[in-house]
Amino acid sequence: MAMPGDKKTDGLPRVAVSAGDSRGVGPEVSLAAVRDPRVLAACRPVLYWHAGLDRPRDAGDVVVCGRGDAGPARAALDCLEASVDAVRAGEAAALVTAPVSKERTAAVLPGFRGHTEWLAGRASVDESDVVMIFSGPRVRTACVTRHVALSAVPGSLSIRDIAWSGLLLWGHLHWELGIASPRLAVCGVNPHASDGGILGHEEERVIAPAVDDLRAAVSRLGGATDLVGPVAADAAYREHVLGRHDGVLAMFHDQATVAAKLADPFLAVNLTAGLPFVRTSPDHGTADDLASTGRADHRSMREAILLAARIASCRSGLRHRLDDLRAALRG
Amino acid sequence: MAMPGDKKTDGLPRVAVSAGDSRGVGPEVSLAAVRDPRVLAACRPVLYWHAGLDRPRDAGDVVVCGRGDAGPARAALDCLEASVDAVRAGEAAALVTAPVSKERTAAVLPGFRGHTEWLAGRASVDESDVVMIFSGPRVRTACVTRHVALSAVPGSLSIRDIAWSGLLLWGHLHWELGIASPRLAVCGVNPHASDGGILGHEEERVIAPAVDDLRAAVSRLGGATDLVGPVAADAAYREHVLGRHDGVLAMFHDQATVAAKLADPFLAVNLTAGLPFVRTSPDHGTADDLASTGRADHRSMREAILLAARIASCRSGLRHRLDDLRAALRG
Repeated sequence: MAMPGDKKTDGLPRVAVSAGDSRGVGPEVSLAAVRDPRVLAACRPVLYWHAGLDRPRDAGDVVVCGRGDAGPARAALDCLEASVDAVRAGEAAALVTAPVSKERTAAVLPGFRGHTEWLAGRASVDESDVVMIFSGPRVRTACVTRHVALSAVPGSLSIRDIAWSGLLLWGHLHWELGIASPRLAVCGVNPHASDGGILGHEEERVIAPAVDDLRAAVSRLGGATDLVGPVAADAAYREHVLGRHDGVLAMFHDQATVAAKLADPFLAVNLTAGLPFVRTSPDHGTADDLASTGRADHRSMREAILLAARIASCRSGLRHRLDDLRAALRG
Repeated sequence: MAMPGDKKTDGLPRVAVSAGDSRGVGPEVSLAAVRDPRVLAACRPVLYWHAGLDRPRDAGDVVVCGRGDAGPARAALDCLEASVDAVRAGEAAALVTAPVSKERTAAVLPGFRGHTEWLAGRASVDESDVVMIFSGPRVRTACVTRHVALSAVPGSLSIRDIAWSGLLLWGHLHWELGIASPRLAVCGVNPHASDGGILGHEEERVIAPAVDDLRAAVSRLGGATDLVGPVAADAAYREHVLGRHDGVLAMFHDQATVAAKLADPFLAVNLTAGLPFVRTSPDHGTADDLASTGRADHRSMREAILLAARIASCRSGLRHRLDDLRAALRG
């Protein structure tokens, strides 16, 4: 079945790239990435660029957005909105977003907490249905809770959200990366996964039942998985980079991001699973101090486009399976 | 001034090595480490070994401990007690402990929560005065909270404990590793170090004041430091392995241990700072599944002995400075 977003030109998927906040490195890493030979071999990038910036040459397809006198945060939002509209209209097969500043964006769009939450709203998807996955050469990991204060993490964990996050990570590994029987480790939330209940009870009460539900859901989908957990997060990531797990499900932000950024510096890609379209981004922020210094590294942006193109070309990707996944979890 | 624990033989410091729980890999990695040529070039190891195990040959000095019919947890405690007594009596200059099982040890010694806390009690040091530092070739990091449930972390953070932990990490880098002006990053406890208060308030209320106190204390000691924080933990560790910080202060266990174990697999050493004697251990647990398979890796144990020997030979180490450090923090 043809799906919105699958339109291609010259056999290559079109990938919409929003240039991000121009006070940071977004526009320069976007530009370097859409000119990268590896990107041009994999897709047709379309760059959504601010009217207020010089129009780049040798950048392929460029869509100029917004008003020339818009500030950097407003201009970044104009690019983002136009690029999302293109993906939702099927004019591009995937969306890649260069970084915006949460603080500056919230100043022009009150309530803005980040691309992930904003995109969920735009796609009418519940925030708890989208999952942040970091997919890189050495580490592939998702986190159950995301942008919440640490004090809210233990109370925010639910059996359903843990199982759903694990299922999306499993699906990414299986359908999008082609791993037949993904081996997953599910982290505990407490040190040493609570050491048998000495250091907390979430492992026993919430995480262990979620591991059972996840195993059952994968089985209902006809899939196979070698699933361990809850296990200590530090051991899980070490075993992962040593090749004993294909992916790790973290319970909170820093478990996942410390691992991804350390193991795959400048090569980790942030993938938003659970949306009806493909969306990736680099694993860094606006890095204002590096803007226009010539020292910004465009590799994570390049990898984000390459992964988006790969997933866009995958006709059995997660975005086509969301109803099946929900049904499998319900049992 | 000659200090207890500084006695030497043949010019090399004596290092007491407790063999750990024999249901795990402790005895075999201890034995492999005390036979390692690099270890023998750096110190005189003394192996504290269970009466119930075959006495090893070609292992240098061996002290046999406990009763032959003691179970593995009791036997490990017998070795631990004898080796600590030796260090406290000045018969050895440092202590290195192979892993014990928290669960099995607590079964024979109710209330046991780990070597670190047990050693603090044995040395009559307040638990909040000892700090767990991971010191490896790529990552050097300490954590302010340690073996507590994640839900207790935000409420356990105090300005004093953060500043004290940072000061011990600074002292380790400066006096024991010889870094003239250690550059430190102090992590936030929340994702993105709370993004300016959007994701929590501990950064503003507790961590930022502690960074000020830490800066003042280092200055009072006549030292220098390039101190940043609170900063996002994931960025801090990435900058650290890229060489832009000499050490990172984490707020909780998994921030530090995920980074240390990923960046320095089998080479990270756990150093207990704040004790009146030198104590290190490998960064792994008993790993029962690897015991007697021939697959246990003794490198972290070897590195633990090498670091203990190095610090024991350092006459200006942290253990000699604790009073000065406390005074510097009081102001």
